[in-house]
Amino acid sequence: MNAVVDVTDAELLAELAPVGLGWRESGHAVLTGPLYRLAADCDQGFATVAAAFGAEPEQHPAMIDARELQRVAYLESFPQLATFPVGLDPADLDTFAGRDPLDADGAVRLTRTAPVRELLTPAACYHLYPHHRGERLVAPAYLTTVNTCFRREKYYRPLRRQWSFRMRELVCLGGRAEVVAFLKRGRDAVDALCRELDLPIRWEVATDPFFRPAQNPRWLAQRLRPTKHEATFGDLAIASVNLHEDTFGAAFDITRDGVPASSGCVAFGLERWAYALTRRHGADPANWPDVAAAARVAGVAS
Amino acid sequence: MNAVVDVTDAELLAELAPVGLGWRESGHAVLTGPLYRLAADCDQGFATVAAAFGAEPEQHPAMIDARELQRVAYLESFPQLATFPVGLDPADLDTFAGRDPLDADGAVRLTRTAPVRELLTPAACYHLYPHHRGERLVAPAYLTTVNTCFRREKYYRPLRRQWSFRMRELVCLGGRAEVVAFLKRGRDAVDALCRELDLPIRWEVATDPFFRPAQNPRWLAQRLRPTKHEATFGDLAIASVNLHEDTFGAAFDITRDGVPASSGCVAFGLERWAYALTRRHGADPANWPDVAAAARVAGVAS
Repeated sequence: MNAVVDVTDAELLAELAPVGLGWRESGHAVLTGPLYRLAADCDQGFATVAAAFGAEPEQHPAMIDARELQRVAYLESFPQLATFPVGLDPADLDTFAGRDPLDADGAVRLTRTAPVRELLTPAACYHLYPHHRGERLVAPAYLTTVNTCFRREKYYRPLRRQWSFRMRELVCLGGRAEVVAFLKRGRDAVDALCRELDLPIRWEVATDPFFRPAQNPRWLAQRLRPTKHEATFGDLAIASVNLHEDTFGAAFDITRDGVPASSGCVAFGLERWAYALTRRHGADPANWPDVAAAARVAGVAS
Repeated sequence: MNAVVDVTDAELLAELAPVGLGWRESGHAVLTGPLYRLAADCDQGFATVAAAFGAEPEQHPAMIDARELQRVAYLESFPQLATFPVGLDPADLDTFAGRDPLDADGAVRLTRTAPVRELLTPAACYHLYPHHRGERLVAPAYLTTVNTCFRREKYYRPLRRQWSFRMRELVCLGGRAEVVAFLKRGRDAVDALCRELDLPIRWEVATDPFFRPAQNPRWLAQRLRPTKHEATFGDLAIASVNLHEDTFGAAFDITRDGVPASSGCVAFGLERWAYALTRRHGADPANWPDVAAAARVAGVAS
């Protein structure tokens, strides 16, 4: 594998601002001009790969009912990542409106809030399982969705680690062997795509970022029997393949041949692909690869 | 104008569920299958119209710094609409993790939260003005962006009134006459598009949904001198053209010929277009119009 030269955030911003990278210190990127088109091309490419799997596209909301996430104990496992969408109590708006809405530090002086029942989408695929609740699959289902995802982190870095970012996922619901075969094909598709894009990646076993991992039996289970593999560019994961076993099938009553369905996903972080492609091929758009063409090759190869 | 037959939410869901409408009672639509493709075609169509204006696409985050919105006193004017993204205090996660995260009613039992400094995007174009802060325009700038927008409402209706929805905007920053001419062209483009789509609309003078409007001088100003016109299908606004005068130019130090720039926007609510097209042409995708072709005609006409 070719060496990947690390870069500071300041260097990255200086290089990529002229091609359309903006950055909000609170953890959000703005994409315009060539970099906007590169990220759009990447997602179009991932959609092309998904279409080669016969995946049906779905568009899901920006937030999800906390009760649905609790069916897989999300808030016990990842409370540090959660962002909650909060509105003011409609019966107490006068209190809010009666004083300066911001404090001297620029923080909102919230008054009484309405009950909080949702989380902003933490990963694109969480929406799919409750949406397919109760289905009796007679063949594996292939689905794809792209969404803005939200994760609170200790620190943020442009394109590499953001509070909000775009994630495209390709998901299979089916029998365990079908899902395992899907993940193999998905990993091959990522390999083919990276080969076409001349993007050096390595596959590494990974675990999800559990809160207090050593005390969480699910983290221990992931350590003992790896279910998550990440495609890393340098030390940055740009895609992952994940075997959920029947966690979601059991939680949402989805069956295949009379038993809880297994599921698995292949996930792509769009801003991270824009990072990797510009680190690999430089900041001049003239040298950027044709992502659509690469995706067609990768789709065929998978 | 042809009559637009009203429909209850239950009727709408029964008609459109088979073509891909899902609904979360908390105010969010899920789009799959034909309806997903119709909404995607609509946005592609609006992007085609935007391209005919030479508009540069920009991708902005899902949230915006409250201090930026306060430069135009957003929270005084629309506190009832605001949704704030809230994370737990990282120093107090153990308290949250030490008990059941939901109450018996399914609401999240929040513990101490981190300071709140952002609002979830209330309208797609708000991001553009701080992003172009300090620019000295020597020609009008045409921009376009699509984003998920968030508005708390007293009640929600599938496709018609949602907590989260998609909005495409086309924006001009420039001299006042340039912006007025742009809004005229934008309105003509909406007319041409609706003609091609056989979608009966009426233009109506409107005001923004101010909190305590009678006490807000900005609402009074809008009443005296209309700056907002909505294209309504039945009683539903599916697009609007808005003259901001120099509100944003002055707030964000954007000038044209040495004076604060004027701005104006043409906004499209994607779910509402899916509603209007399916009310007009029925639930059978075979009868839906070719939105891309209609948009090309509308782009040329404008």
